[in-house]
Amino acid sequence: MASYPNEPLAISLGDPAGIGPEVIAKCWDNRSTFGLPPFVAIGDGRSIDAVWDGPIEVIDDPREADAAFDVGLPLIQISAAEPDIPGRPSLAGAHCSLDALELAVGLARSGSASAVVTGPVAKEQLYAIGFSHPGQTEFVAERCGVSGTNVAMMLAGPSLRTVPVTTHLPLSVVPRELNGALIESRARAVLRGLQRNFGITDPRLAVSGLNPHSGEAGSLGREEIEIIEPAIAALAAEGWRVSGPHPADTMFHASARANYDAALCMYHDQALIPVKALHFEDAVNITLGLPIVRTAPDHGTAFNIAGEDRADPRPMAAAIRMAAQCAALRLETA
Amino acid sequence: MASYPNEPLAISLGDPAGIGPEVIAKCWDNRSTFGLPPFVAIGDGRSIDAVWDGPIEVIDDPREADAAFDVGLPLIQISAAEPDIPGRPSLAGAHCSLDALELAVGLARSGSASAVVTGPVAKEQLYAIGFSHPGQTEFVAERCGVSGTNVAMMLAGPSLRTVPVTTHLPLSVVPRELNGALIESRARAVLRGLQRNFGITDPRLAVSGLNPHSGEAGSLGREEIEIIEPAIAALAAEGWRVSGPHPADTMFHASARANYDAALCMYHDQALIPVKALHFEDAVNITLGLPIVRTAPDHGTAFNIAGEDRADPRPMAAAIRMAAQCAALRLETA
Repeated sequence: MASYPNEPLAISLGDPAGIGPEVIAKCWDNRSTFGLPPFVAIGDGRSIDAVWDGPIEVIDDPREADAAFDVGLPLIQISAAEPDIPGRPSLAGAHCSLDALELAVGLARSGSASAVVTGPVAKEQLYAIGFSHPGQTEFVAERCGVSGTNVAMMLAGPSLRTVPVTTHLPLSVVPRELNGALIESRARAVLRGLQRNFGITDPRLAVSGLNPHSGEAGSLGREEIEIIEPAIAALAAEGWRVSGPHPADTMFHASARANYDAALCMYHDQALIPVKALHFEDAVNITLGLPIVRTAPDHGTAFNIAGEDRADPRPMAAAIRMAAQCAALRLETA
Repeated sequence: MASYPNEPLAISLGDPAGIGPEVIAKCWDNRSTFGLPPFVAIGDGRSIDAVWDGPIEVIDDPREADAAFDVGLPLIQISAAEPDIPGRPSLAGAHCSLDALELAVGLARSGSASAVVTGPVAKEQLYAIGFSHPGQTEFVAERCGVSGTNVAMMLAGPSLRTVPVTTHLPLSVVPRELNGALIESRARAVLRGLQRNFGITDPRLAVSGLNPHSGEAGSLGREEIEIIEPAIAALAAEGWRVSGPHPADTMFHASARANYDAALCMYHDQALIPVKALHFEDAVNITLGLPIVRTAPDHGTAFNIAGEDRADPRPMAAAIRMAAQCAALRLETA
């Protein structure tokens, strides 16, 4: 097993009516098989009890997690106003999931937790209680005092890591939201993130084009010439190893992937289609550009299967493992 | 080996300065290993001689191909005005590649060839000599008397077949070019094509959304609600098994792929990224909606490696095999 940090990982349960509690409990069950370090779950223990028969060790301080981890699933209890029924999200559950996220991030910020792993939340319910961020990534960035444009949402699988420049936008809006400054800031977050979280000293970044065939020298769109190429040139002038713009359809097969450590893509599906096609069970969402390590499994609340004991814990296990590895690397190189 | 049709396949060499001649010659070399049926190459034999030492059997009539195939690479000679140098395309070469394509399609139309496989052409040179189609697909459609909107460009690999609704357009133009009639006509071409070319009696088509998360119920774009869902409903009302719109990032992993026979995607990269990530060496371009069978390897002229004996013949071999299998199936069910 890789070396792991001393402090436990803090894992927010996510929405109590989603599959977060189930997959986290299953990770504790399979902690040896999955090779997981000690972690502490944060949220309402009743949402775990509703879907799992195993032992829970309620603790008050993350420092107790290590000892408790052998006995049961360590939990810092945050009680929802009323317990949720699996598959039926509520505003009380949304409040609870937000409190758990807040505490998990705070523990990592203070150093009491080595990293944060976030369970899946219900955005619709969060918006209804006043949550104003597009997602957990932007919330965590704000709590860390980092601008949303200076972080990058990476999806990392065993053979491919991708990052979208624009994220949750209608496709028709992507071309006008794309600009050189945004490409450069995302690229820098990715390149530094590869150094800091993955130990890649001189990382190689491949940048995709926006248009089919990367615009075919302007005949299928000019964003490559006017926006992307200048951004790549600016990054190269800083000494970074950046290539592209590459036609997106020919940059994700095995021999192409061997030429870079991460791919920077222009929009959501361009980045997420290939990594999920190749690594659906073990791709991890990791936020780069933060002072802390934050990962998440790449799935949602899956309310439709919550409480049915059908949720696959492997993505959560992959997120926990990656968080621990990145945190250990940061300690080594700090 | 699967059953194959009686008539040979007609293979246009594509641009004489590209890798077409080399990969076709290598396919003849490896005809047993690759499991290839008799075929006849059409184009300038000098472009093969320039890159290959094997025997060429010049014939005048495709009916001679079967016997000649054991002795050498059967070739119907079309002489360019001047021979090309590998890697250096010319207008004379473009004329030659167009004549070869025209003859290959004509032989398939007349029944003298069982199918057409097209080698890669140089679009820039073709445009310079007055070629007015976006690509070979549209040219073949016109020669077959079929409207370009009623054919579909499928990329077919062993575990995934995808078709883009819009093809070679700048990304910024895609949202306004997308409409229900186009989605429906492409879908029908795909569904009938799955029946006719692949023998799938009651084919299942999965349709992607345009926007991230398929628009998240309208909050990330309304094309799903206004355009795609009504098109799916219209197709379902005709009795077709059509599902979607599916979020594009979660429809291409193995267990999702098990639910459909082909995926209809809204734009070029959405369709081509997953199939090329999974099947770069053996994905085949097949045109659906034609009275003839037409396939092509999914690569270009690769002028940068032409003449260096480095071109991989496996994509061409896959295109030949698929053409023969589809042609045989059509004969059986005719």
